[in-house]
Amino acid sequence: MSLVDAAFINLERRETPMHVAGLMIYELPPDAAPDFIKNLVRRFRSPVKLGAPWNQVLAKAPLSRLAPAMTAVSQIDFDYHVRHSALPAPGGERELGELISNLHGVWLDRSRPLWTCHIVEGLEHGRFAIYLKIHHALADGVRCMRFVEACHAMTPDQAIRAPWDGTPTTKRKPCAPADPAMTPRLGLGDVAAAVRHTATSMRWSRDHDPELIRPFSAPRSKLNGYVTNARRVATQQLEIDRLKRIAKHAGVSSNDVYLSVIGAALRAHLSAQDGLPDRSLIAAVPFSLRQLGDDANGNQVAFSWATLATDIDEPAVRLNRVHASTFAAKRHIEAMPAPLRPLLTAALAAPATLAGAAGLTQWLPPPMNLVVSNVPGPASTLYLGGARLEALYPVSIPMQGQVLNITGVSYGRHLNVGFTGSRDALPHLQRLALLSRTALDELERAYEN
Amino acid sequence: MSLVDAAFINLERRETPMHVAGLMIYELPPDAAPDFIKNLVRRFRSPVKLGAPWNQVLAKAPLSRLAPAMTAVSQIDFDYHVRHSALPAPGGERELGELISNLHGVWLDRSRPLWTCHIVEGLEHGRFAIYLKIHHALADGVRCMRFVEACHAMTPDQAIRAPWDGTPTTKRKPCAPADPAMTPRLGLGDVAAAVRHTATSMRWSRDHDPELIRPFSAPRSKLNGYVTNARRVATQQLEIDRLKRIAKHAGVSSNDVYLSVIGAALRAHLSAQDGLPDRSLIAAVPFSLRQLGDDANGNQVAFSWATLATDIDEPAVRLNRVHASTFAAKRHIEAMPAPLRPLLTAALAAPATLAGAAGLTQWLPPPMNLVVSNVPGPASTLYLGGARLEALYPVSIPMQGQVLNITGVSYGRHLNVGFTGSRDALPHLQRLALLSRTALDELERAYEN
Repeated sequence: MSLVDAAFINLERRETPMHVAGLMIYELPPDAAPDFIKNLVRRFRSPVKLGAPWNQVLAKAPLSRLAPAMTAVSQIDFDYHVRHSALPAPGGERELGELISNLHGVWLDRSRPLWTCHIVEGLEHGRFAIYLKIHHALADGVRCMRFVEACHAMTPDQAIRAPWDGTPTTKRKPCAPADPAMTPRLGLGDVAAAVRHTATSMRWSRDHDPELIRPFSAPRSKLNGYVTNARRVATQQLEIDRLKRIAKHAGVSSNDVYLSVIGAALRAHLSAQDGLPDRSLIAAVPFSLRQLGDDANGNQVAFSWATLATDIDEPAVRLNRVHASTFAAKRHIEAMPAPLRPLLTAALAAPATLAGAAGLTQWLPPPMNLVVSNVPGPASTLYLGGARLEALYPVSIPMQGQVLNITGVSYGRHLNVGFTGSRDALPHLQRLALLSRTALDELERAYEN
Repeated sequence: MSLVDAAFINLERRETPMHVAGLMIYELPPDAAPDFIKNLVRRFRSPVKLGAPWNQVLAKAPLSRLAPAMTAVSQIDFDYHVRHSALPAPGGERELGELISNLHGVWLDRSRPLWTCHIVEGLEHGRFAIYLKIHHALADGVRCMRFVEACHAMTPDQAIRAPWDGTPTTKRKPCAPADPAMTPRLGLGDVAAAVRHTATSMRWSRDHDPELIRPFSAPRSKLNGYVTNARRVATQQLEIDRLKRIAKHAGVSSNDVYLSVIGAALRAHLSAQDGLPDRSLIAAVPFSLRQLGDDANGNQVAFSWATLATDIDEPAVRLNRVHASTFAAKRHIEAMPAPLRPLLTAALAAPATLAGAAGLTQWLPPPMNLVVSNVPGPASTLYLGGARLEALYPVSIPMQGQVLNITGVSYGRHLNVGFTGSRDALPHLQRLALLSRTALDELERAYEN
């Protein structure tokens, strides 16, 4: 297990379970038999030869508290891992939101493989949902997308396949780590060196590049409260075409547009609660270190820092500020020696996470205000046993000290955005989700004129 | 918070959440409106002035890790505490069992009052269920029964009242602790003294009373495995009249008959798995220290030890052995000075619990094989908003090192027995529940001849 993977095990607390999930909404096939869901559950529960990470259990060893390791098991209790649930009537967004929020607050049993899959019937308009939860130590967002893609068909094919069922990509050899320097075995000393290197290069780059955002330069805000056990989850869909069109007009990336939209929504939401800081909110923006075809489990993610320009009212000006910061971050990363890039996560995220775990978040300046993530998902429509995958939302982790995580996953024509918050800190999360649509409209109008 | 209450907070681990629950099954009223459940949820979620223990939150203080204390809050998030769920079709015992097992493995959020209430619709035959979960630090079984009684009516009355809603008994002053020696403020020194006293008197009594069962005299068994996070729950109903009739014939107590029935079921179940120890299984049997009208929150329970005579094949002989041990325990307790009795729990249960928490259960002899509990519940039929309470099952705690808890609650003509096990240790818990009925039949036959 890499140092980053292990950190997700070691830093897990009652208040901050370290799992991520995919919430998938399906349309029942037009000709679905009455026992379609029952069959799906039966199929998902039928014993198959599991590969990693689905068969991985935390090893019990004298030092496993310090250096957790995984070991494979040959059999698992499918009745436990695959749950069959139902929504109370009318099975709308509200009922689904409540169930998912509650499920997401429950951590994974450490005596078993660290995942569960919940098949939820009773959604209105002849739909059902699957909530697939996996420990972050086992897979990052990009890896999770591979599992989603592997178990779906591109056609309304009738065969049902579980995400853990003979996933071909788990057998393919990871092709990226041809350069062994890319997946170094890291010790704490390496991380310390990386922290020093990152700090030095940050300082250096900042002097040469005033747009570069440094960690721990974020203002205090409502987003940096104490995370408790319970979750609140909200969702929103943004049309990718619209994001792209704006990006093209403005000469920026689609991700800049997404960050700018999130910034505008947060600005409006916090203003309404008299909680908008004078200085702009700062987001940590994960980026994947995986090269094409790298299907290793675990985490291959690093972080960059971006402004959300929440101090700026003008949509177009805000977008330009966001772009300037992400562009500076890109330059900074590219200037780093490639083998050091994987250390960025440890170097940048570790102080934040350690501070959170040690309960120091109220004493330290926030390393960032929140994490805003964007994971490329399936481009075309997918089917599971003939059921069309209507939407696919990520549900992620509010780390201690950052009460909100916003993650987007592209699927077909939409960027599906999941807002995962600590329940008490952000009572009106659905409003924030709605505001992100309004923000997209506004930004679009700014470029139409 | 008493030392015993505090222990339930401090000894709580990921693997052993320390909450208990009541599972109540209702018949919908014959004239129920289609929105009966919705109204029930709305009513349960409507803000009311909460009393203890429903408004009690763990206090945050520098020493709260060592000496947890509770503090009252004036407002709580009812949408969080009251959950509305549904069973997938057909809503039978299997689906309900799965849901309850899963809910019971989830621990309570420590930033909120330590209880949740789950209203479950979609049970077959026009029924619904309520699963009410509360931390054991807040209430013992007898106290829980008071809450159940307080929110129900004796007639098919239409008004719906929540268990936490103006419960009259929470306002009445506890009348038992007139003798302040009965609720002493205990320090660790007192517990140590009690351990010594208990040990001495045990030794003394054992010499004079060979029937007295001592702690740590239980044989190793499958029931003393490692408890993991997930639960398995099974239920059974035993007719109280039958228990009483046998008790009368045999000249023993109804509880002796219940213990004997449980012993016979465990004997059959473990034999079938080649896991029956040569020596008899030993149960820890909690008894209430509450005097009539004592409605204080928290725990007022002590333990005695009983043989389940699982080494004996003859039902009537087994019952006599069980009775001899409970009778000896009673004599022993009565011989103790009354003010020392409350210390029995700490003195007898603490070593077991501490050993469990410290992961020493595999090195030490088991203090007991399991806990078998029996709580007096409501005698006559109860109603909630016109819905008849059909059954009321306790769901309890497998402590570390004892993978099974068996608790019975009397309600009307039945003793409703809840079997709560650690999921992997006892895969066929429902079979054990069935065997307890067979055991009652056998015992009855033994006294008919």
